[in-house]
Amino acid sequence: MNHIKWSKSEKKIAREAFEKAYERECSYLAGRIREKANNIRKSDDIWELHDFLTEKRKEVDDKYDYRYSVLDFVFARLTKEGWLEYDDLEGVAEERIEYMKSLLRFSKPNTDK
Amino acid sequence: MNHIKWSKSEKKIAREAFEKAYERECSYLAGRIREKANNIRKSDDIWELHDFLTEKRKEVDDKYDYRYSVLDFVFARLTKEGWLEYDDLEGVAEERIEYMKSLLRFSKPNTDK
Repeated sequence: MNHIKWSKSEKKIAREAFEKAYERECSYLAGRIREKANNIRKSDDIWELHDFLTEKRKEVDDKYDYRYSVLDFVFARLTKEGWLEYDDLEGVAEERIEYMKSLLRFSKPNTDK
Repeated sequence: MNHIKWSKSEKKIAREAFEKAYERECSYLAGRIREKANNIRKSDDIWELHDFLTEKRKEVDDKYDYRYSVLDFVFARLTKEGWLEYDDLEGVAEERIEYMKSLLRFSKPNTDK
């Protein structure tokens, strides 16, 4: 765990970046939902869309956890998955950004959105 | 409860009518889902669609109960809601059709699909 405190201005940047990533992911998800909805051909496709949404809702709820105690991990994950770029965190202490990057150093590349 | 037994040929008609009603309702539901999906403007619209699907899935699961002990009630409800017409049950004993109609006599008209 990182013990560097978030300054007031960093908290503002963090909140905005967090919202931006959430909007990006939801926008992408909306596209997938539209595609699935427009491809419903039989009743089972409806229930499959419901299962998909149930799973995604849980995933998004779990992922977007804005507690400062876990935020470095959240941001590291969001950049790994492509919902956030480090540029979105411009103004946050370089030391913290490096810490986030270090969290990913030994993780496998993400190929599945 | 109706104690007239379903004959073999009536069971075939009943099964087909049941499937037809289910397909009609699912087809209408698919249209509503497409409309909602194509109208997603913000993230909350995604979760609202999920809630809608959760509710509809439960409703459909509860409604489409193919046990002969409850089938008269199921068919009465399906005709009331417009998913089935008595013509779809042509070949089923008139006495049974009359019994189904009697089940609806004192129920309120359905205005909400």
